[in-house]
Amino acid sequence: MRKLNKQSIEHMALGAAFLGTGGGGDPYIGKLMALQAVEKYGSVDLISVDELPDDALVVPTAMMGAPTVLIEKIANGGEFKRAFDSMERYLGKKIYATMPIEAGGVNSMIPLAVAAQMRIPVVDADGMGRAFPELQMVTYHLHGITSAPMIITDEKGNVSILETINNKWSENIARAITVAQGGAVMIGIYPMTGKQVKMCSIKNIMSYSENIGKVIRESSKFEVPLIDQLIEKINGYELFRGKIVDILRETKAGFNFGTINLDGIENYKNKSCEVNFQNENLIVKRSGKVIATTPDLISLVDLDNISPITTDALKYGRRVVVIGLKCNEMWRTDKGIETVGPRYFNYDIDYIPIEERIKEV
Amino acid sequence: MRKLNKQSIEHMALGAAFLGTGGGGDPYIGKLMALQAVEKYGSVDLISVDELPDDALVVPTAMMGAPTVLIEKIANGGEFKRAFDSMERYLGKKIYATMPIEAGGVNSMIPLAVAAQMRIPVVDADGMGRAFPELQMVTYHLHGITSAPMIITDEKGNVSILETINNKWSENIARAITVAQGGAVMIGIYPMTGKQVKMCSIKNIMSYSENIGKVIRESSKFEVPLIDQLIEKINGYELFRGKIVDILRETKAGFNFGTINLDGIENYKNKSCEVNFQNENLIVKRSGKVIATTPDLISLVDLDNISPITTDALKYGRRVVVIGLKCNEMWRTDKGIETVGPRYFNYDIDYIPIEERIKEV
Repeated sequence: MRKLNKQSIEHMALGAAFLGTGGGGDPYIGKLMALQAVEKYGSVDLISVDELPDDALVVPTAMMGAPTVLIEKIANGGEFKRAFDSMERYLGKKIYATMPIEAGGVNSMIPLAVAAQMRIPVVDADGMGRAFPELQMVTYHLHGITSAPMIITDEKGNVSILETINNKWSENIARAITVAQGGAVMIGIYPMTGKQVKMCSIKNIMSYSENIGKVIRESSKFEVPLIDQLIEKINGYELFRGKIVDILRETKAGFNFGTINLDGIENYKNKSCEVNFQNENLIVKRSGKVIATTPDLISLVDLDNISPITTDALKYGRRVVVIGLKCNEMWRTDKGIETVGPRYFNYDIDYIPIEERIKEV
Repeated sequence: MRKLNKQSIEHMALGAAFLGTGGGGDPYIGKLMALQAVEKYGSVDLISVDELPDDALVVPTAMMGAPTVLIEKIANGGEFKRAFDSMERYLGKKIYATMPIEAGGVNSMIPLAVAAQMRIPVVDADGMGRAFPELQMVTYHLHGITSAPMIITDEKGNVSILETINNKWSENIARAITVAQGGAVMIGIYPMTGKQVKMCSIKNIMSYSENIGKVIRESSKFEVPLIDQLIEKINGYELFRGKIVDILRETKAGFNFGTINLDGIENYKNKSCEVNFQNENLIVKRSGKVIATTPDLISLVDLDNISPITTDALKYGRRVVVIGLKCNEMWRTDKGIETVGPRYFNYDIDYIPIEERIKEV
């Protein structure tokens, strides 16, 4: 267990935005939310999965909705307490700790704000090790954990409690509610025991985010170019360097869909690159050839300051590096690929691990 | 209190479809649902509002959704028990009785099916005295009763519990869930005490429906033309007789919207008539002049057998009579008009009581 200081939280938000692969919210907003809550209610303890009692009730928390809406609809804090009170009343049990469901600039920070306000610790783990657009896309789901009961609440005070027959129905119903409530809501979902969290979560992800954030912030002290330091540190793959020349974007059914087109620079001159996203970056093609796909991580960072770029902050003319990263092994199982592979997102592409695709190029 | 026999139920379904003013579901389907439940679980007691203990918990039940979908998605009965069990568990209290929220071919029958299965009585009252398309359009709402907690369930087994800040938010969120779950769901809503039911419901509406159904079925025994008997019996107004020459229809956001055009026959030769609906008939114009509006009742019946015609069963060429009827006085208050008057439905028309509009023509 350790108390998180301001700098840890800032690094965490930044690193989580990198792991958010375009989604999971803006790290600046996420950081502000967490820091404000800490200022108001006191500091937050980060505990490792091993420190959780087996019978502890853990409730992951997040914002749900299109990232572009998240920016306009910042939580006022009332949601956190309402969601937790509703869940505790409904289950008739005290909540021991919270944790993220995904890594992201906002969604790694929400549990910190919740924890500060509720005076409980945050578990150093999540359910994706990255970000994905739908609720059933978590390692909890791969291990048969049910998302229900799920609590949904908005800034106005409306609360919905879902008891669904499976996790995809939670996604469908919750998405409809999210759209009806303005496009972004606060959720408490996948209530688990400490034992279940130990079995099925992606461990130490908050600390890992913090480390990535630290590399990003501190790399300017060294001689090696920033971007190379980052890629080496995370065992990543440089997939492309280029300038954004086109962005197609559509907010539909509560998601941000889109395509980014890049023209190559430096070693990639005369080459092009296309990235497809649904909240998160899903597919990268270099000069027409697929070089990385979901569930492996695809992140865009600014070439100059290596800050991660979320899909809602894409801007014409920006010079970026596309970085690939192996996903957690749980996503490479049959059930993992079925849940978050390219075909789930309607791409007629087989999943081939990024390290193999890269060899072929 | 009286036990309802098969004939009472049949008459009730038919009369309720008339009061349903185009909505509330097909009386044939409604009748079958109720009769099947009675056959399987035993007969149902109808109790008057006065027989309710003041502290009894009463939970109105209904199907929610576009009537055209209702026909394809008939309840299998599992919904009724699930909704009731969820409500009782959530409130921690036994449900004493159920009742309809609106009059309609299906929605007056659902409470009978629920009551048969749950072995509880049905209260002879509802919240509209007719049918309306949205959840806040009930006399309960006019008296400040909250729709929450509201239970929504589908034939698959999904359950949502809504705790909203007001009744219009219940409508918005429940409508989104209804669409996500295929367009028709079963609901339990506006849980009330016996005392509240006495204060704010429309009384004896089930018996009134039964009487109307009886007139429709038995009027052939008499000499006077069927339609005149019906109109006299209910103190209604004949607004038009004509042939359906055009039907514009659209299912949108969980509702059926549309316009019916009629060419006059008999005394109405060379006149035209237009009826606008949103699930229910809302506005009637005769040769361009408004002659009746919501919240007064506007029902179409078949000229030959005086069967009520729901908006999902409209057919080109059918010869119909348009009948108007005064609504309950509760709807004629300021809050009533604000909730269900023409302007709520985006018509730039003042509400003028039907008896005054008719005088002017």
